[in-house]
Amino acid sequence: MAKFQTVKGMRDFLPEDAILRDKAFTIIKNVFERFGFSPAITPSLEYYEVFANKFSIGQENLKNIYSFDDKSGRKLALRFDQTVPLARLIACNPQLPKPFKRYEISRVWRYEEIKRGRYREFWQCDIDTIGTKSMAADAEIIACALQALIELGFNDIKIKINNRKILNDIIEVENKNDVLRVIDKLDKIGESNVKKELQKLNIDKKQIQKIFDVISIKGNEKVLAKLESIVKTDEGKNGLNELKEVIEILKCYFDEKYFEIDLSLARGLDYYTSTIFEIVSGDKSIGSIAGGGRYDKMISKFAESKEDIPAVGIALGIERIIELIKLKNDKKKTVTQIFVASVSDENKKDVIKIAKDLRQKGFKVETDISGRKLSKQLEYANSLSIPFCLIVGSEEVKKGVYKLKDMGKGKEIDCSLDEIVNVLKDRIF
Amino acid sequence: MAKFQTVKGMRDFLPEDAILRDKAFTIIKNVFERFGFSPAITPSLEYYEVFANKFSIGQENLKNIYSFDDKSGRKLALRFDQTVPLARLIACNPQLPKPFKRYEISRVWRYEEIKRGRYREFWQCDIDTIGTKSMAADAEIIACALQALIELGFNDIKIKINNRKILNDIIEVENKNDVLRVIDKLDKIGESNVKKELQKLNIDKKQIQKIFDVISIKGNEKVLAKLESIVKTDEGKNGLNELKEVIEILKCYFDEKYFEIDLSLARGLDYYTSTIFEIVSGDKSIGSIAGGGRYDKMISKFAESKEDIPAVGIALGIERIIELIKLKNDKKKTVTQIFVASVSDENKKDVIKIAKDLRQKGFKVETDISGRKLSKQLEYANSLSIPFCLIVGSEEVKKGVYKLKDMGKGKEIDCSLDEIVNVLKDRIF
Repeated sequence: MAKFQTVKGMRDFLPEDAILRDKAFTIIKNVFERFGFSPAITPSLEYYEVFANKFSIGQENLKNIYSFDDKSGRKLALRFDQTVPLARLIACNPQLPKPFKRYEISRVWRYEEIKRGRYREFWQCDIDTIGTKSMAADAEIIACALQALIELGFNDIKIKINNRKILNDIIEVENKNDVLRVIDKLDKIGESNVKKELQKLNIDKKQIQKIFDVISIKGNEKVLAKLESIVKTDEGKNGLNELKEVIEILKCYFDEKYFEIDLSLARGLDYYTSTIFEIVSGDKSIGSIAGGGRYDKMISKFAESKEDIPAVGIALGIERIIELIKLKNDKKKTVTQIFVASVSDENKKDVIKIAKDLRQKGFKVETDISGRKLSKQLEYANSLSIPFCLIVGSEEVKKGVYKLKDMGKGKEIDCSLDEIVNVLKDRIF
Repeated sequence: MAKFQTVKGMRDFLPEDAILRDKAFTIIKNVFERFGFSPAITPSLEYYEVFANKFSIGQENLKNIYSFDDKSGRKLALRFDQTVPLARLIACNPQLPKPFKRYEISRVWRYEEIKRGRYREFWQCDIDTIGTKSMAADAEIIACALQALIELGFNDIKIKINNRKILNDIIEVENKNDVLRVIDKLDKIGESNVKKELQKLNIDKKQIQKIFDVISIKGNEKVLAKLESIVKTDEGKNGLNELKEVIEILKCYFDEKYFEIDLSLARGLDYYTSTIFEIVSGDKSIGSIAGGGRYDKMISKFAESKEDIPAVGIALGIERIIELIKLKNDKKKTVTQIFVASVSDENKKDVIKIAKDLRQKGFKVETDISGRKLSKQLEYANSLSIPFCLIVGSEEVKKGVYKLKDMGKGKEIDCSLDEIVNVLKDRIF
């Protein structure tokens, strides 16, 4: 019986899960770097005020922050996301050449109700571009995230795009942010519930109907045509131009089937100022797997700068992504590719030297480190589903030719250490 | 002016540092996996009792733990190390096949006084093997850590090895653990200070002299010969056999010049039961860069098991390692290898398509996303020391041949996209 458990809402990952997570992170990192995003790392702990100030994550999210006083009475917080620490980092480092393109893949903590698929410690994969207002940056962020998802094996995905400036134009009420948060729930709670909630916010029925007349239009060309005719403020016109530009540039990266303008997309966070986007799976039950947008005002507040420090970013919802990958991939219990087994105690040292050679060739190799007999060694290799065993007895050592056993198929072939590279190259690498 | 700073003792890593850390972690991970260690991941937060119970890190370390009550009144702690969470994980998962070999590379937190090279958030790289008492596991752990350090570029290193059972035999006093903690400081504070501190622990001078007569012997053969003659308890004899066995097996992995028995090596933590080791640089000012040992009793306490669950592990002192790597490596400000520059606005879309092609070939590529003129684009590429620029104008697009500029040498050559792979393969990959 274990004396202690994991903290509620937090998880251990045994190798079978950790290997899969690691594989996903490696693919994502590789795509981020091919798009010229470099790693940056921020601490897990920030001063509480970094999150609690009015330009940050918003009052309603503060209840979900893990915060505490350290032994010197400093109020600290485990980070809620990676975007706010990035804003703090940029403010602390005004010398960085712009545009500054960074990724961060790490843990965040939220004290939330525990539901299926919700955890109190989870990982985020973020890319952000700081220091340019150009829509080329927004398009690049979207394209990079889409490419990562495609390389992770998702094909049936779509990017929904909208622009906050357009929403501000369409929604002619005082409490715009409250309205946006309600509209953002459209996919989850449906049209009639959204309408009810909007009424509760004292939005009159005519205005609600007007909003729905616009946000329910589908088809990129139709939406743009409609917007041309109804957008009236300078802000709205500016937003419409931005939207058209993002779409235009995105076409250089991807086929148009991948993206659609969705005026009902609102995104919950207050800090977005322009382009907003979400990547969703074609399978509607799965919902959003990435989301982000442009936030041109936040960083300047952190930097106490009078001028905007524009920024745009996206976060991949990696926990959901990994759940989906799990459905498609066989779990591996170990990274080990070859178990080098010793026929008798006399061969224990030979085995270490052979393992050394194979490791130098790049293979992931285990040997017996428990003083077990051959049959028990093979049992162990089987229990971890190690794909190949190399059997080493004195006779084999003398010849320099060993039995390589394919543990899945049960077949054996004789080969030298140099031949193994060729024999296994299509099977393992 | 930045409104907020990083929390005291914690650090941001800008790309120039994050790239180097990432490179070091990748090398280490690769070696760990080639030795058949698989990743496992434990949470950052544990229940406070996991660290505070008497089989854990020890009373004197508790003051350095970041602990707090969560909103439901659970007392939580940010993890102090990765070993204790591993013990908890093993206790929670008795089904795991043994030996269980895992690595974890992640953050730990200690509320310590801030000195040069000491931080309150830092990274540990751990490998541990659970479930075998065989010295083959100890030797493998040492060999794997040594191999990682060699691949990181350290050649002038040595492993110091000792065995707690031998120390227990030699040190004939009640308060053995207190004495061990003092002896462990020998390298730092010198012989005379250690002797003074031992006197403060009421160890009589004769006993102190006897201890020093043994622990100051150098040379593996001499030490072993001396031990043969003085070790008298069963425990001591057992420890001596274990020590000889580890040395014997280690010789299969590495030349003997890499390891020496050092009876003055004690290691601070109470939980070690047998083999202990430390890897030090030949440059004495640098000190220990990795350390660990066998701890056969801890996990069984966590599992409430009557039988021992033996374990052996090592942690690489990655912060110190990275400081040393920094001295030898040029810092890179970005991962980007090629900046694809557009001669005029007309080429912005061509540039995106060319970047797409180069990314598919595996290159890390940036394009202009700020609407800048060519000269400003090249300035930006220079400010990040991006090694190559590809200049794209309408004429070049028509021909399919572009100017590839080596930004370091200032030289240009003409080449097609397919030729770039060959031109750069020795320069970048």
